[in-house]
Amino acid sequence: MSKKWVYLFKEGNSSMRSLLGGKGANLAEMTNIGLPVPPGMIVTTEACIDFYDQGNKISEEIISQIHDALQTVESQSHKKFGDNKDPLLVSVRSGAAVSMPGMMDTILNLGLNDDSVSALAAKTGNERFAYDSYRRFIQMFSDVVLSIPKYLFEHVLDDQKEKNGYKIDTDLTKDDLKLIVDEYKKIYKKEIGKDFPQDPFTQLEMAIEAVFASWNNKRAITYRNIHGLSHKMGTAVNVQSMVFGNMGNDSGTGVAFSRNPATGEKKLYGEFLINAQGEDVVAGIRTPQTIDELGTVMPEIYEQFNQISEKLELHYKDMQDIEFTIEQGKLYILQTRTGNRTAEAALRAAVEMAGEGLITKNEALLRIKPSSLDQLLHPTFDLETMKNAEPIAKGLPASPGAASGKVYFTAAEAVAAVAKGEPVILVRKETSPEDIEGMHVSNGILTARGGMTSHAAVVARGMGKCCVAGCDDIRVDEEQKIFTVKSEKFVEGDTISLDGSTGKVYKGSIKTVEPSLSGDFGKLMQWADEARKLGVRTNADTPKDAETAVKFGAEGIGLCRTEHMFFEESRIPVVRKMILSETLEQRMKALDLLLPMQKGDFKGIYKAMGERPVTIRLLDPPLHEFLPVEEEDIIALAKDMDISLIKIKEVINSLHEFNPMLGHRGCRLAVTFPEIASMQARAIIEAAIETEIEENIKIKPEIMIPLVGMKKELEYIKKIVVSTIEEVFKEKEYTVDYLIGTMIEVPRAALTANEIAEISEFFSFGTNDLTQMGYGFSRDDAGKFIGEYVNKEIMEIDPFQSIDQTGIGKLVQMGVDLGRQTNPKLKIGVCGEHGGDPASIDFFHRAGLDYVSCSPFRIPIARLAAAQASLKNK
Amino acid sequence: MSKKWVYLFKEGNSSMRSLLGGKGANLAEMTNIGLPVPPGMIVTTEACIDFYDQGNKISEEIISQIHDALQTVESQSHKKFGDNKDPLLVSVRSGAAVSMPGMMDTILNLGLNDDSVSALAAKTGNERFAYDSYRRFIQMFSDVVLSIPKYLFEHVLDDQKEKNGYKIDTDLTKDDLKLIVDEYKKIYKKEIGKDFPQDPFTQLEMAIEAVFASWNNKRAITYRNIHGLSHKMGTAVNVQSMVFGNMGNDSGTGVAFSRNPATGEKKLYGEFLINAQGEDVVAGIRTPQTIDELGTVMPEIYEQFNQISEKLELHYKDMQDIEFTIEQGKLYILQTRTGNRTAEAALRAAVEMAGEGLITKNEALLRIKPSSLDQLLHPTFDLETMKNAEPIAKGLPASPGAASGKVYFTAAEAVAAVAKGEPVILVRKETSPEDIEGMHVSNGILTARGGMTSHAAVVARGMGKCCVAGCDDIRVDEEQKIFTVKSEKFVEGDTISLDGSTGKVYKGSIKTVEPSLSGDFGKLMQWADEARKLGVRTNADTPKDAETAVKFGAEGIGLCRTEHMFFEESRIPVVRKMILSETLEQRMKALDLLLPMQKGDFKGIYKAMGERPVTIRLLDPPLHEFLPVEEEDIIALAKDMDISLIKIKEVINSLHEFNPMLGHRGCRLAVTFPEIASMQARAIIEAAIETEIEENIKIKPEIMIPLVGMKKELEYIKKIVVSTIEEVFKEKEYTVDYLIGTMIEVPRAALTANEIAEISEFFSFGTNDLTQMGYGFSRDDAGKFIGEYVNKEIMEIDPFQSIDQTGIGKLVQMGVDLGRQTNPKLKIGVCGEHGGDPASIDFFHRAGLDYVSCSPFRIPIARLAAAQASLKNK
Repeated sequence: MSKKWVYLFKEGNSSMRSLLGGKGANLAEMTNIGLPVPPGMIVTTEACIDFYDQGNKISEEIISQIHDALQTVESQSHKKFGDNKDPLLVSVRSGAAVSMPGMMDTILNLGLNDDSVSALAAKTGNERFAYDSYRRFIQMFSDVVLSIPKYLFEHVLDDQKEKNGYKIDTDLTKDDLKLIVDEYKKIYKKEIGKDFPQDPFTQLEMAIEAVFASWNNKRAITYRNIHGLSHKMGTAVNVQSMVFGNMGNDSGTGVAFSRNPATGEKKLYGEFLINAQGEDVVAGIRTPQTIDELGTVMPEIYEQFNQISEKLELHYKDMQDIEFTIEQGKLYILQTRTGNRTAEAALRAAVEMAGEGLITKNEALLRIKPSSLDQLLHPTFDLETMKNAEPIAKGLPASPGAASGKVYFTAAEAVAAVAKGEPVILVRKETSPEDIEGMHVSNGILTARGGMTSHAAVVARGMGKCCVAGCDDIRVDEEQKIFTVKSEKFVEGDTISLDGSTGKVYKGSIKTVEPSLSGDFGKLMQWADEARKLGVRTNADTPKDAETAVKFGAEGIGLCRTEHMFFEESRIPVVRKMILSETLEQRMKALDLLLPMQKGDFKGIYKAMGERPVTIRLLDPPLHEFLPVEEEDIIALAKDMDISLIKIKEVINSLHEFNPMLGHRGCRLAVTFPEIASMQARAIIEAAIETEIEENIKIKPEIMIPLVGMKKELEYIKKIVVSTIEEVFKEKEYTVDYLIGTMIEVPRAALTANEIAEISEFFSFGTNDLTQMGYGFSRDDAGKFIGEYVNKEIMEIDPFQSIDQTGIGKLVQMGVDLGRQTNPKLKIGVCGEHGGDPASIDFFHRAGLDYVSCSPFRIPIARLAAAQASLKNK
Repeated sequence: MSKKWVYLFKEGNSSMRSLLGGKGANLAEMTNIGLPVPPGMIVTTEACIDFYDQGNKISEEIISQIHDALQTVESQSHKKFGDNKDPLLVSVRSGAAVSMPGMMDTILNLGLNDDSVSALAAKTGNERFAYDSYRRFIQMFSDVVLSIPKYLFEHVLDDQKEKNGYKIDTDLTKDDLKLIVDEYKKIYKKEIGKDFPQDPFTQLEMAIEAVFASWNNKRAITYRNIHGLSHKMGTAVNVQSMVFGNMGNDSGTGVAFSRNPATGEKKLYGEFLINAQGEDVVAGIRTPQTIDELGTVMPEIYEQFNQISEKLELHYKDMQDIEFTIEQGKLYILQTRTGNRTAEAALRAAVEMAGEGLITKNEALLRIKPSSLDQLLHPTFDLETMKNAEPIAKGLPASPGAASGKVYFTAAEAVAAVAKGEPVILVRKETSPEDIEGMHVSNGILTARGGMTSHAAVVARGMGKCCVAGCDDIRVDEEQKIFTVKSEKFVEGDTISLDGSTGKVYKGSIKTVEPSLSGDFGKLMQWADEARKLGVRTNADTPKDAETAVKFGAEGIGLCRTEHMFFEESRIPVVRKMILSETLEQRMKALDLLLPMQKGDFKGIYKAMGERPVTIRLLDPPLHEFLPVEEEDIIALAKDMDISLIKIKEVINSLHEFNPMLGHRGCRLAVTFPEIASMQARAIIEAAIETEIEENIKIKPEIMIPLVGMKKELEYIKKIVVSTIEEVFKEKEYTVDYLIGTMIEVPRAALTANEIAEISEFFSFGTNDLTQMGYGFSRDDAGKFIGEYVNKEIMEIDPFQSIDQTGIGKLVQMGVDLGRQTNPKLKIGVCGEHGGDPASIDFFHRAGLDYVSCSPFRIPIARLAAAQASLKNK
C-alpha cells in the first residue's frame, strides 16, 4: 500500500494542521463546509520530510500522486493545465503547521507559458493583463525558485519605462509587456543556462521543490531554534487553481469583515472593486466601493456572500475577515481568518455573540484580551483633532491615556499652576517620591529618563494618570525651566500633549474624549465576576484613588501605603523632624503631630471604601527617602529646625546606605523605632472607631507589617501594635474588628511561611520585592542589563512586568502551601504591579490565592483576567 | 501509698536530673560510686511544683518526709540537728535540672543557734570561727530567705571595724563577733517582728520555702521565657551536712584538676590549705600549697585523693575539677565537674585519653570545640613579655593572632616600608579592596570602623592575618598620618602591637610565639580525616595562600577570586583602561595585557596545589569597585589615560548603582562583556596546559560562573567559555580536563537548581549572598540593626556568622535535592565564611554536600567540625 502524500482540499479538515499545514487545513475546512473555494490540493508536510530523507528529491510516488490530484483539480475547475484554450493556472504557497517567517513566498499564475498566455488573453479579452501576468510570473518564479537577482528584472522594466517616458507600471502597454517578457526569458536563460520552462508540470515540480527547500533556509532554522520548534515538522505545499476578478464587469474582488472591526456592530464591513484583482485594491489606484454597494451592483452575489459570512461566523464562532473574488458572476472565497479588531469592537462583538447564542458567556469572557481593556478606561485623543497634530518626540508608553496641558518643571510649580486653574503637564528628568503631589495634580507626566518600571511610570499607572517616560528625544533643564527637542525649545507655560498609550508627545493642545463605559462593558464585567474565584482589591493611598477603584469594582483595598501620606508638602517638615529627633521624647512630639494627619487620611479612605476591607501597610521605605537631597533644601531645613547644618548632614550621612533596598526599612524600622508603629496603629484604630460611629458602618482595618523575614520579627511588632490597640479600645470604650498580617516579600518569609502563619491572620505577597531579592535584581539598576537579557533571549520577559512562574512563583507557591499548612484559614493576596498583569493573575489563581490587588485603573483587567484564569484552569 | 518527695543521696543517680536537679543528681551519683560525700538529701522538683499547687505551701507529707530523711542524715554523720554537743550543720542550695541565673543562693551553716554555736566553738576549739560562722549564717539567712537589706548588716560590721580601727574583717575578735551577732539578731527582730528562729528545723523549712519561691522570681521567669524553658519543671533543694576544713591541722580544703588544665599533662594539678575553709582559699590571705605537697603533708589522704581522681576520670571519662575538704583526717569530696581547660590542654588530654583507652578516638574528636583550634594556629604574645604591656585601646577581635610592627597609614606606604624590611601594622579608618596588597604585606591590621564582617575583618581572616577592627577608641587621620588614643598621638613609624584574639592594642613591641603544631594536633587531624565525610577545600587567591592552605590540609581550592588579582598596583591601571574602553577593540587591547598576568597567577596557584582541584570564579564584583573614588585619583587617572576628566566622571557616574549588591555584577558582566569571560577562560586553560607540561602533573581547573539565577544565563556564558577553550586546545594541540559549574548564591538559582544542574558539572553555594538576598539584608548596612535584632532576641545569632538553617538552609537543601534530581553525580560544595563555621558545617554535612571551602587558617577547624558532624549524625 502506498502512502497518501497528497490531499485534495475536500479530503482534509481543520484538525489536520500538522499534516496539511495551517493554510491547507483551513482551505480544506472551508471546502468541506460547502464554501465555494477554488479547487486545489495539498502536498503534505510528510512529503517535505521525505524530500529531505531522499536527499532533497521528491520521490516518484509523490510526483505521481501530485499528477493524479492535478487531474481532479482540472476536472473540478473545468480547465486544463497548459491548455491553449482554457488553461488552468495555479498558485503555489508554503504552509507549515505554525506560521513562520523566512519560508517561501507565493507564486501566482503558475501554468502560464508562451501558449497559455495567448489563451488567457483571449479568454479575458485583455492581452495587456495576460502578458503582465506572464512577466510577473517569470519574475516571481525566477526569484523564489531560482534566486535570480530581482534587480536584473527591475532594470529591464525601468529601462522600458524610461525609454517611453512612463512614470508608473500601469503606463506600460501590452506591446511593452510582450517585449519585456522576451527580455525576461533571456535573463533567465543567461542566468540558468536553460530556457524558461514551458512545461507547466515542470514549473509546478520546481516550485514545490523550492517550497520544500525553503523549510531549511537559514532564517527559518534560526526562527525554529529561537522558538524551540522541531526541525522535523516540515512544511506542506498548497496548490490552488487561480480565479480572476478582472475578467470583466461580472467579475470583482474584495475583502470584508463579518462585523465592524472598529465598533463591533453586527453588519458586513468591507470593500470591493469591480473588474479588478486583489493587488488593485492594495495599489489604491481605484477607490473601492463599500461592501453595502455590492448589494446594489450584484444583489445575488451580495446575498450569497452575506450567507457565507454568517455561516463562517457560525462555524468558527468568531468575527471573520474574508477575502473573496467574483469570476464571471461566480463567487469564490479565497481565505477566511479571525478578524483583528479594536478593543471596543472585541468587547461589543463578544457580548453580542453571547447574546445571540453563538458563543457562551464564558467563551465571550475568553475572547477579550484583558490588557486591551486598558484602552477603554482612559481618555483618548479626539481622532478628528489629532489629524493635524504632529508628534515631536516619542518615549515609552508608560501609563495609558491622553492629556494636554502647560509645561511645568517642578512639583511645587505644578501645584501652584493647578491652584490657579491651569491644566498642567509635569516635565522632569525623572521623578522621585518628593514629586508625588505634583504628579497627582497634573494631567500627565513626561520624563526624559527611566523605564517602564521607573518611579514615574509606576506611580502614574497607580494614579491612572497618563505618562510618557524615558523620552530620550528631549533634554530637560530643570533649572533653566526649558526642555528642548532637537533644536526646538519649550519653556514653562508652553502647551504640549501626551499620548501615554503610544508614548508620543505632541506640540500644542489636542481635544480628548472621555471613555464611555458602555453597557457591554458592564455586562462583561458582571459575567467576569460570576466566573472568577479570585477577589480583586486595589492599591490606593488616597480617598480619591479609593473612590475611583470602587467605581471600577474594587472589593477592598489590598495595599494602602502610609508613607505616601508623609510626602505631602504640609507634612514632610514634621516627618523630617521626627527622623532628625535625637531623643525618644522629641520623636514622640513629632509623632503626636503626625497622628491626627494620618487619622484624617484613614477616615477619608474608610469612608470611600464603606464596609469593604482596607489593608494598611505600616511605614516601609528607608528614612533617608524623606530627607532633602539638594544643598539648598538641606540648608533651609537646618534653618527651619534650628539645627546646625553639620549636624543635619551628619544625620543624612548616617542614614546613607550601600544597598538601601536591603537596608534599614520595612518592619526593621518598627523594631528600632517602635513608637512609629505605635502611632500608626493608633491612627488606624482611632480612625476606624470614629468612622464607625459617624457613618454607622462596620470598618474592617487589616494592619500589614512589611518586609517580615522571621516569625519573631512579626511577633515583636505585633505585640507593640496590639498593646497600642488595646490602649485605644480602653480609652474610647469602643472596639472594632481588625486583623494583623504581613507582607511576604522577603524570600525567607516564603520559606518559613509555616512559622509566620502561626501568628499572622493574612499574607499579602509583595512580588516586586520577592522578584528583586529572588533574582538578586535591583529594579533601579537592572534596567542597565535586563534589556540585554531579553535581547539575548536569556529572559523572555522582564520579570517585573509578569511574574517569573518557575522561580519566584515557586516561592509564592511555597508561601501559600506552608502558610495554609499551619493556618488553613489564612487569607492570602498579592499587591504590587503583578496583581494587575493577566499572566500573573492566572498564576495566582492556580497558586490558590484569595485575591489580587492592583492600581484602580487595572481593576477591570484584573477582574477579567481572574475570570479567564478560573475558566482556563477548570 | 504516699509519693516519694525526698531522696537521700544514696537513693539517686545521675540519670535523675529532672527529678533531683543537676546538682542533686550529681551528688547522688558520687555517693553511689562510693565517694566520701558528706551525707544529705534532695527535696525533689516535684515537691516544688506541689508547693505552688498548694498555694505556696509545703505539704505536711513532704515535711514529714524531710524529717525522716534528716534523721538518716543525722545517723550517717553521727551528729544531731541543733545538738549542743555535736550539732549537725547543713548547707541548703537550689538545684534545677538546668542551671539558671536568678535562683536562690547557698545558705551555709544552717542549724546554728545560740546553743549550737557554743558546741561548735568547743568542738573546733575556735570560738572566733564559731561566732563568725553564726553571724554569717544570720546575715545570709536574713538576706536570701527574708530579703532583709544587706547594708543593714554591713553597717554594723563597718561600725565595729571603724570603732576599733580595723582594716579588714579578719581583724575582728571573737568578742567583736559575739557583739555583732547580738546586733544582727536585733536587726532581724526589728525587720521581721520576730526573734531570729532558734529551732533548726524551722530554719530549714524556711530555707526550703525560699528556694521554692525563688523558682518564680522575676529574673528566673525571664530567663526561662528567653530560653524557651518550661515553667513547670520546678527546682529541687539540696540539703547537705557541712564539713569543716578548719578543725585543726588534721583538716584542710582544696581544689584540684585530674590533669593539668593549661597543658593537658596527666598529673594532678591544684592547691590546698591546711586548717582552712573554702572561702579562705578564695580570700587569698594565706598562700595555698600545691597539691603535690599534700603528698608530703598527708600522704594517705593524698593517695586516697589520687585514687578518687582516677576513679572520677574513669567514671565521667573526662578531666575532672574536684573540690575537697579534709575534716579531722577524713577526706570529703564536695563537688566534681568537667574541668575547664585551654585549647592546648583539651587537645592533649583528648588525644592521651584516647591513647589510654579511656575514651575512643571518636569521643576524643567530639571533646574538642573546633573553634578553639584557632588559638593553636596563630602566633600569640609571649606571656612573660606581655606582663609589662599595657593595652591602650580595645576593638573587635576580628582576626586572631598577635603582631607587632610600625604604624603606616596607607597601603602604598605599608608596601614600601615592608620592602625596606620593616615590620608593619597597617592602620586605616576602614579598608577597601584597594588596600589588599598593603594588608597582605603587613603583620597586622587595625581599623577604626567596621564590624566583624567588615572588609578588613573578612579579608584579614581570609589571609590568616591578625586584625583588630572597629576600634572606636582611636581616631585615625590618614592625611596627617597620625592616630590618637585619648590624648596620646601615634605617628607613622611608631611601634604598636595587636592581639587579634582579644581585640587589644598595645603600645610598643611585644615578643610573639609561633604556634607549635605538636604531634597531638597532627594525630587529632588524622582521626578527623578518617571520621569525616565532607571534603575540605580552601578559599585562596594567591600561591602563598594556597601553600598555607595545603600545609593545613586543604584538599583543593573551592574558591579562587580572580578579581583580587585585578587590584594589584601594577594591574589596576590596565583594569581601569579595560573598564573605560568605549569600543570592543579598546577593551580587547586591555584584556590582552591582562591575559599574561592572570595566566601567571593561575600557574602559581596550580603549582602550589599540585594535582588538587582548583575552582576559579570568573570576575564577580561590579566594575565601579575598580575605579578610583578620590578626586585626585580620578584626575590622575584621566591624565594617565589621556581622557577628559568630564568623560571619566561620566563613566564613573554611569557605573554608579543604587543597590550594587543587586546590580550589574557576577555573570551579568559576562553577559554584557563576554570578552572578559573569554579572556579569563583562556588564561585558566593556557595556564593549566603550561603547568601540566612544565610540572608533569595533571591540573584540574573547575571554572565557576558566579551569580547565576537562570539556566539560560549559565548556558549563554558556558557557550562562550567552552568555545574559547576549544580554541585554545586547537592552538596548543593539547587538552586538559576541566569542569564548568556555577555558584548557587541567588535564591532563584536554588529554587530552579534542577534546571541549572542540567548544564552544570558542579554547584558551589555562596551562602553569604544567599543570606543577603534570602533575608533581604545588605551586609554592609545590616550592621545598623542586626545588633538590635540580636539584643531584642529576634535573632539568636548573626546569620552571616552561622548559617540560618531554618530559612536559608531550606534554600540550600532545595538546591542540593533539586540539583541531584537532575544530575545525581553533581559535585556540591560551599565557599564563603560559613564554610569555616562549625555549626554551619554540621548543617552542610546533613544537607549532603560534598565539601566545604574556607580560608586557610580555618581548615583545621573545618576538618574537625566535619568529623564531628559525621559522628553526631550517624
